[in-house]
Parts: sequence; structure tokens; C-alpha cells
Amino acid sequence: MTRSVPVLRTVQQVRQWRRQCLFNHEKVGFVPTMGALHLGHCHLVKHSLANNDRTIVSIFVNPSQFAPHEDLDAYPRALDRDLDLLAATFPHKGVDAVFVPKVLEMYPSGIVLEVDKQKGAFVNVKGCSEQLEGAQRPAFFRGVATVVAKLLNIVSPENIYFGQKDAQQCVVVKNMVKDLLFDTEVNVLPTLREPNGLAMLSRNEYLSQQTKDECAIIYQGLCAGKDFYSRKINGGGTLVAAKSILQEIQKVYDTMPETYTVEYVAISHPETLEDLEEVTPEVGATISTAVRVPRATGGEARLIDNVQL
Amino acid sequence: MTRSVPVLRTVQQVRQWRRQCLFNHEKVGFVPTMGALHLGHCHLVKHSLANNDRTIVSIFVNPSQFAPHEDLDAYPRALDRDLDLLAATFPHKGVDAVFVPKVLEMYPSGIVLEVDKQKGAFVNVKGCSEQLEGAQRPAFFRGVATVVAKLLNIVSPENIYFGQKDAQQCVVVKNMVKDLLFDTEVNVLPTLREPNGLAMLSRNEYLSQQTKDECAIIYQGLCAGKDFYSRKINGGGTLVAAKSILQEIQKVYDTMPETYTVEYVAISHPETLEDLEEVTPEVGATISTAVRVPRATGGEARLIDNVQL
Repeated sequence: MTRSVPVLRTVQQVRQWRRQCLFNHEKVGFVPTMGALHLGHCHLVKHSLANNDRTIVSIFVNPSQFAPHEDLDAYPRALDRDLDLLAATFPHKGVDAVFVPKVLEMYPSGIVLEVDKQKGAFVNVKGCSEQLEGAQRPAFFRGVATVVAKLLNIVSPENIYFGQKDAQQCVVVKNMVKDLLFDTEVNVLPTLREPNGLAMLSRNEYLSQQTKDECAIIYQGLCAGKDFYSRKINGGGTLVAAKSILQEIQKVYDTMPETYTVEYVAISHPETLEDLEEVTPEVGATISTAVRVPRATGGEARLIDNVQL
Repeated sequence: MTRSVPVLRTVQQVRQWRRQCLFNHEKVGFVPTMGALHLGHCHLVKHSLANNDRTIVSIFVNPSQFAPHEDLDAYPRALDRDLDLLAATFPHKGVDAVFVPKVLEMYPSGIVLEVDKQKGAFVNVKGCSEQLEGAQRPAFFRGVATVVAKLLNIVSPENIYFGQKDAQQCVVVKNMVKDLLFDTEVNVLPTLREPNGLAMLSRNEYLSQQTKDECAIIYQGLCAGKDFYSRKINGGGTLVAAKSILQEIQKVYDTMPETYTVEYVAISHPETLEDLEEVTPEVGATISTAVRVPRATGGEARLIDNVQL
């Protein structure tokens, strides 16, 4: 069942591979990941395979998007399993290359986690990086934008793919690509979910089966808000107060296990991520949340999710 | 004598032009400018013409590198004269294209000068942007790095050319290209000077002939420091205290017209721009200065210069 996917380790190797595609007039699709691949990633790869001549996946746990107290060292890494999953999921026309760089290949000047001590070039997307996840993780989106800029400069894909699960990341990357004039199209695909509705995240690996079952409530709450909004609009309303949507979600979250901590539930403009007071069908909205839940091995995992109105 | 150089106005036009070069296997050299071209720019163009199959010049006065109180509106703009100069200087094999974008083409989300109100993607090169010119102009190198990143994403040149005159800009861009993994080579060419030694700057246009004559002292002071260093090293010294070099320069600057204001004279590591206590032949150094001098029409012009040890 397995097949050998070429694993490229250096920027130079990717450039050579890319150059060959270019002169063959082959369109390239790119799926950047931090590894610990799951069906959500495979969903992105599937779309890339269907819409491009060549597909490349990167696997790189990006240090600059982790704070010193976060789980950089513990973040799940399993290259062989990732390659096996790609091979098993796409046994026929599979991905054409996997880029697995070392940290110094991506950060030639080195990188430390303490933001104050960092030197070198960073990309910051002002206006959509500071709120929501950015409020909890101040340098997170700077790290994301920086590594995506590097990857785009290496791969120069016609298409790059992200999951809607990371709603704010999608907004940040879209704005960066637009503002810095990268010649690539950002494709955002719907969140893949477990049968109980839990969004598929690599960090779900941290959870016991019982927690995974209970975590269904995160998505159920968001759906309660979305359903409430839809009923109002379908009932002839032209706008719905954000506060009343949040109340519907809160009713569900009030029944969460006591060990869970809801960091935020927010209703935001889908493109600028500014807080909305009211939601209209013309503009729409993103309802997003982050919840800390117990890890199987002690400590907590942060789970995020969102729905689009 | 004049010939018509194709003027490209949009990102899309440049990309088409660039793509053609690529499929013709033609190497592209790129000279980014803010217009008000002089012999210093032509020197960069000459090198690009000699070392690439195609050469493109951009003319764009970049708003994000001006502070609200600076001379964005007054900065010299004279496109026809610039095109004439290029045509007259290179009558035979001249530049292949000139890119003259509007502000919204380069800043699709718009741009305001107040840094606090700016939104969108910006590139910051930490560690070499804060000192010297950066201390006087806090968002200056963020503006430079951001616009060069945009231009590199549009033009994708094999070679990009800068003048040593803007020593810190060269360090910032080199670090950005290295860190963000742009596939281009940064070429830094020596500063071109007037017969009296004054570095050629577009802002020299602000000066009366008398001031231009008197401004020779800026370079003379730097040369006095360089000569002092060379004598010490040639006399068998292995290092020279930065303080003693600065004293030699100060002796010259003490004789400046009273209307001049020296903002700084600094002796810095040539690659990191960190302050040096002592200079050795192994590491070398950049001596740089900024001096405010009277403008012909009132007010002051900031002139910068540097020499390499």
C-alpha cells in the first residue's frame, strides 16, 4: 500500500523541484502543515491534488509561533507516520514531494522563543493579529505570517491551502498575501470534524477518549448560536444582536465539565475580525472560541473552533 | 538620443514581463529607486545591464518609509526627466522596463503615515533597524523592508542593486533576503560622489550651490577617521579604539558651519550594525553619519554618508 514520496530537506532542493514544474508548465498546489497529520490535512491535500498538476506538502513545527511556556517540545512529531498516512490515503496519484526542513534551514539566522531577544526579519499583519487568539498568544500570528512568507518564497505555489478551523490564521494569511503581493491564491476549506462534531486538530492527540467525547460540546455551543441566528433571519429579521447569539452559546457552555475553561467566545467581522455588535446576512460573521480542557497526561490542551454565519 | 522605455504601471504587467524573461531563460537585474534619478542610480543600472540579460528599474516614492512630519509630499518627483536621463545615459542597450506603480497598486489595503493607525502586512528586521537612522526615524526601515519585500514578490529578480550610500538599508535588506528566503542576490555598489566628495543623494536637489560646496566637509570628516585608522593599522597596530577615530572626525566637524547639526557619527559592525568599541582589520567597520544642513528654500535637509573600514 505504501509508496515512496520524495522527501526534500533543503530550500535548494525545493527550488529545483519547483523550477522543473515551472518549465513543464505544471501548476503547483501547496499544503503547509506542522505534521501530526490527520484527515483534516488529507482533505486539503485532496483538494490540491484535484486542482493542480503537482502537490507539495511541508511538515515543519514552526518555533516562532510558540511562546516559551507553550508546547513546542511536546508538539506531536511523527514523520514516518505522517508519510505513511499520505501514502495510504492517496495510493494512486499522491503528493509529489514533502518538504521537511530543519529549523536552521527556515531560520538561517537562528531563532529563540523569547520575542524580546529575537533578531532578523518578521512579518506582522496589523489589525487582524491582535485580537482573539492573538490576545492570548501575542506573537503567534507574527510567527505564522513569517513562516508562511518564507514558505511562499521557497515554493511559489499557484495555490496554497488552509483549513477554516484556524479562522484567524486564514484571515492573517489572506491579508499578508494581498498586502505583500505574493503571487498565490489562498484557498480555505471547511473544517473536518469527528463524528461527534469535534474539530480535527493535531492537539486532539493530547486528549483521552472521554475528553474527546465531552468536547463535542464546544461545537454544539457554536451551532446553538448559529441556529439561533438562522431562525431569526429566516423569521424575517434583518439583523441579530451579537449579545443575544452569545447568550444562546453560553446556555450550552454552562453545562460544560467544571474542568473546562472557556477563554473567549467572539463574534467578529469575517474579513477584518473586528468585534461585531450585530450580525447581518450581508456581512456575515465568524463565531470563534478557545477552550482549555484537561490533557490525558495532566495539564491542559487549548482547543479552538469556529462557525461562519 | 532619447528612446522609448516601456513604462509598466501594474503588478500584473510586471509579472507578465517577468514571466516572458523566465521562459526565455533571461536573467533579470532590478534597480529599485524612489526616482529623482542621478548618476548614482545610473551606476547601479550600468552594473545591472552588464551582469543580467534584462534590467528593470522601479520608480516609487514609498509612503511607509516617511514619518508624518517628513518630506513625502515635497520629495522630488520628475518621471519624464528620470526617463530622459535613463535614455540619454544608456542610448544603446538600455533598461528593458520601468515600473511606475501608483500607491494603491503597492498598498492594496491603503496606507496612512501614522504608524499607530496603519493596518496590513509589514516586514520588520529586528536587530539592525533600531539604531543610527532607525533611532532618528523609528518606522523607516520597516517601510523600506516592506516595500522591498513587495517589489521582490512582483519582480523576482536574480539580482537586486543598492548603493553603499545607504549603508544601513543595505544591511536591513540583506538580512531580510536571507531570513525570509527570497531567491535573489543583493548587490551593493560603492557610493558615487560629486567631485568635492559629497555623496550623490536625491535630496541634494534641496541644496544651494554654496551648501553643496560646504557639505564636502561631511565626507572629509569620515575620511579623516578612515585615514587615522589606516595609519594605525599600517603602523603595526592590531586594533584601533573607536573613540580615537571619532575624535579625529570631530576635529573636522568642529569646523562645520554653525547652521549644520550633526545627528550622529557612529562606528558599527559592518553586518550587524552593533556599536563597536574597537576596530580590527578582521571584522572591519562602517563609520556613518547624518547631518542636517540648510535647504535653499528654508528648513533643513538630512544628508547621510558612510565609509567602510
